[in-house]
Amino acid sequence: MTTGAQALLRTLVNAGVRVCFTNPGTSEMHFVAALDDVPEMRAVLTLFEGVATGAADGYARMTGHPAATLLHLGPGLGNGLANLHNARRARVPVVNIIGDHATYHVPFDAQLQSDIETVARNVSPGFVRTATDTARLPLDVVDAITAAVGPPGQVATLIVPADLSWTEGASPAQLPEAGRPPAAADSVIREAADALRKGRRTAMLLGGAALHGAGLQLAGQLAAATGVTLLAEVFPTRIERGAGLPKVERLAYLAEMSQTQLRGFDHLVLVDAAPPVSFFAYPGKPSDLVPEGCAVHRLTADDDVVASLSALIELLDVGHWPIDAQPAHRPGLPDGELTAGSVCQAVAALLPERAIVVDESLTSGAAFPSMSAGAPPHDVLTLTGGAIGMGLPLAVGASVACPDRPVIALQADGSAMYTMQALWTMAREQLDVTVVLLNNRSYGILNVELQRVGASGNGAASHHQLDLSSPPLDFVALAQGMGVPASRPTTAREFAVQLSNSLAEPGPHLIEAAVPQVFTGRKLKALPVALRAMEALPAPLAKALRRRIAP
Amino acid sequence: MTTGAQALLRTLVNAGVRVCFTNPGTSEMHFVAALDDVPEMRAVLTLFEGVATGAADGYARMTGHPAATLLHLGPGLGNGLANLHNARRARVPVVNIIGDHATYHVPFDAQLQSDIETVARNVSPGFVRTATDTARLPLDVVDAITAAVGPPGQVATLIVPADLSWTEGASPAQLPEAGRPPAAADSVIREAADALRKGRRTAMLLGGAALHGAGLQLAGQLAAATGVTLLAEVFPTRIERGAGLPKVERLAYLAEMSQTQLRGFDHLVLVDAAPPVSFFAYPGKPSDLVPEGCAVHRLTADDDVVASLSALIELLDVGHWPIDAQPAHRPGLPDGELTAGSVCQAVAALLPERAIVVDESLTSGAAFPSMSAGAPPHDVLTLTGGAIGMGLPLAVGASVACPDRPVIALQADGSAMYTMQALWTMAREQLDVTVVLLNNRSYGILNVELQRVGASGNGAASHHQLDLSSPPLDFVALAQGMGVPASRPTTAREFAVQLSNSLAEPGPHLIEAAVPQVFTGRKLKALPVALRAMEALPAPLAKALRRRIAP
Repeated sequence: MTTGAQALLRTLVNAGVRVCFTNPGTSEMHFVAALDDVPEMRAVLTLFEGVATGAADGYARMTGHPAATLLHLGPGLGNGLANLHNARRARVPVVNIIGDHATYHVPFDAQLQSDIETVARNVSPGFVRTATDTARLPLDVVDAITAAVGPPGQVATLIVPADLSWTEGASPAQLPEAGRPPAAADSVIREAADALRKGRRTAMLLGGAALHGAGLQLAGQLAAATGVTLLAEVFPTRIERGAGLPKVERLAYLAEMSQTQLRGFDHLVLVDAAPPVSFFAYPGKPSDLVPEGCAVHRLTADDDVVASLSALIELLDVGHWPIDAQPAHRPGLPDGELTAGSVCQAVAALLPERAIVVDESLTSGAAFPSMSAGAPPHDVLTLTGGAIGMGLPLAVGASVACPDRPVIALQADGSAMYTMQALWTMAREQLDVTVVLLNNRSYGILNVELQRVGASGNGAASHHQLDLSSPPLDFVALAQGMGVPASRPTTAREFAVQLSNSLAEPGPHLIEAAVPQVFTGRKLKALPVALRAMEALPAPLAKALRRRIAP
Repeated sequence: MTTGAQALLRTLVNAGVRVCFTNPGTSEMHFVAALDDVPEMRAVLTLFEGVATGAADGYARMTGHPAATLLHLGPGLGNGLANLHNARRARVPVVNIIGDHATYHVPFDAQLQSDIETVARNVSPGFVRTATDTARLPLDVVDAITAAVGPPGQVATLIVPADLSWTEGASPAQLPEAGRPPAAADSVIREAADALRKGRRTAMLLGGAALHGAGLQLAGQLAAATGVTLLAEVFPTRIERGAGLPKVERLAYLAEMSQTQLRGFDHLVLVDAAPPVSFFAYPGKPSDLVPEGCAVHRLTADDDVVASLSALIELLDVGHWPIDAQPAHRPGLPDGELTAGSVCQAVAALLPERAIVVDESLTSGAAFPSMSAGAPPHDVLTLTGGAIGMGLPLAVGASVACPDRPVIALQADGSAMYTMQALWTMAREQLDVTVVLLNNRSYGILNVELQRVGASGNGAASHHQLDLSSPPLDFVALAQGMGVPASRPTTAREFAVQLSNSLAEPGPHLIEAAVPQVFTGRKLKALPVALRAMEALPAPLAKALRRRIAP
């Protein structure tokens, strides 16, 4: 028999949850104390809860297994909510452990008392539980982990009153052996096979487990054998790409562009992906991006994706078909001015094999996907839920998950500022992360959006809301203030040298690249016209125009 | 007729809501665009939503009027939640305007879709509404402001779908004239008067409107006339204090200490305050801090506090009684080492008249209240809800509210890191804020709490969770990185010089004082013993011991 906190920790470890990203307070002190008794648990301290939750997301994306978070009551969960939203949208497993007041303290409505469950429902609709009994606490932990692991993976939230943690009388529990989920039903497989037989009139939209590892290989075989197009969600959880891997075309963020990508298909087979929708609504524009008359077939979501794709391969009898592999190719090192484009080119030119790229570069990183398509194989983690501030935390989690792989965070300036405390954890844990900070001194994407929503907003007051130039943020100082070595190149060549050095050295580095905005002046003014034109043009012309707009 | 967004802004301005602390995204772009049409609205951009919400709290504490916040969907609200929790506990008015997807976009479950209302209920239990109609939107705004203003003041949340903002067809509305709430009922006044007649056996516990302005003066008269003791809540919303003002003893954070403050009273009259409870629960310790046998009388909460105190004065016929004023006295300038104590001494020695002190100094600021008791009159804003990360944002809001008053943020290191983005807004708006950053390289309070909760936790793993020394945070670099001039004194004398210079110059400054922890080593080990002893000793001895422990 041990205390509730000790049994909780031991149960997590028994179930393979061996990393906890923490930001504890008084109600979590018994959990903290129990770390001395359960050395198998690695507790990674963060200075802000959004770093802890984003790190748990990044860890889960790279391992497929949950990490725990340790958060302090309702406000601690609130601070972690934005990145839990991204994790929910990524459909990855995360186990939140949230301390609460002792059960008997709740009626006194002390200062930190609040309704934690109502907050948690936003990100944990499938599993929110407040533990009520020390002896049962380990079973609650098992239930939370089971719910988190899924399928589908999800955020599970267990709220633990402090007296349950400090009371003796709990025994660690074991997670029951989980069976693999089955493949999709035969009828579903047959329907998908019929769609694939249409060849070029069909696209497979890949998400989740279909974008890396075995799932991606199988999808690649199917595409090569049938001639269908492989598309990826706008913001994939994890996409494996590069030389030798199947070619997959990622849908564009701007709905007008993704509409041109989807135009002309009569069948869309969803593989662990949701039907494509516009990221935001815009006056007079459709939300649903499925072309009119296009039939949508959902191959699999909560089933075993690899098993379902294997069944499809078997039914179509294309088991030995070679994939249409992306040829190896990368750009040379850039020269001249430091721009968003030359930064992306340098990263693509120097990208190490098996790198993990966490992409929150927004407008500044627009050129990276095409530049790096033929680079050595790498993974890209993206902004699944659109809640900015995910980049640096995800890089923490990905690096903790994969200490032998270099992590590159392509990071925009505005979004970096939500969770920049992650830099301190990178330094403390000596994580091998290179942060490429693309500083355009603006909420660049909002300049685009202000145009697109058709808002008037051409006055000083509105533009002042999108401008981050006064005072300018000095990311070298910010990084150094948190113990991360940092530098600021002034030319594309200098950037490449500094990136190369950073990749060669262990531990974290930040390189701040001051770059002009991608969309400004005439380009920004012409954008709505070009997007409207794109909708009207025949598909091949629209695709050509799309390539010109996406820099 | 105007767009929903224009009418929304105009209605806010009509109702006297002329400041909005913002962190907008695409769904708020029409609000942003409307800023060009409604120049009376001052929009203060923040880099993180927790800064916006904390600033709205600080603004309301100093003006009594609400500011608006502008937040981006569920994740934006999540990021702002911790400081909205503090605002809820401060019972101040705040109006959240939260953009949401267009109504018709919701069914498509796009990436940023989430249940915003469930999150909002945590901090806005009294008013959460999703607007449904452009023409009605201005009336929704009126209802939100009315709810926020109270009494009691509260956080009101209005969720505005993007299409309601961009659609034409709304007319700005006016706030109806609000009557003042009445004084407490006669029977309540009589009961309180009877308690006050007991003199020294009675204490008045003051909170809210009873701790500043007319309320405080009236409470001071009552105390002087009847001999009752004036106590203040542990974490007041706003406490006015200093030379010439009524003496009020603030309850201590450590429950064992506040128990000794409350011991011996037979009557406790609550004036705009909740009954005293322990901040956290501890094994074997009471949550309720009201002494056994002590009768509790609630004078007023949602009534007009000043009117109720006036009625009490009239009934007791002490209308012309002079207050027992705090004599003017302040410490000399410190010399020698830079310690938490010498920093507090220097601030007390140099505190300008009418300064606003935002106190999130936690353990390091423990000496400040006694040191500054006789300083020139000033206001102190405290951590009402216990959600750390309020200090720098509140300083932003207080300074926007009172541009002619110097603001001093007494700020601990650990809590500073939750919302340090506030520094950028201070620089951008050139706010006259001096941040005194007490850096003890530790979650100092948690060292105390780890002992107090009786957790074992004497190993390296648990202590590592409370240690912020590796890498050390360099707050001078962090401040400079966000455009705030900063310095780092090495002696108490140097600190005083730098503080003096900073107070003499306009605009923001940060002074980082590296100080030893207040509670370490033998002092920390002896603390539980001393606290236990305090409970057993007679009141006068216990009070003497309390003074020795509180440094």
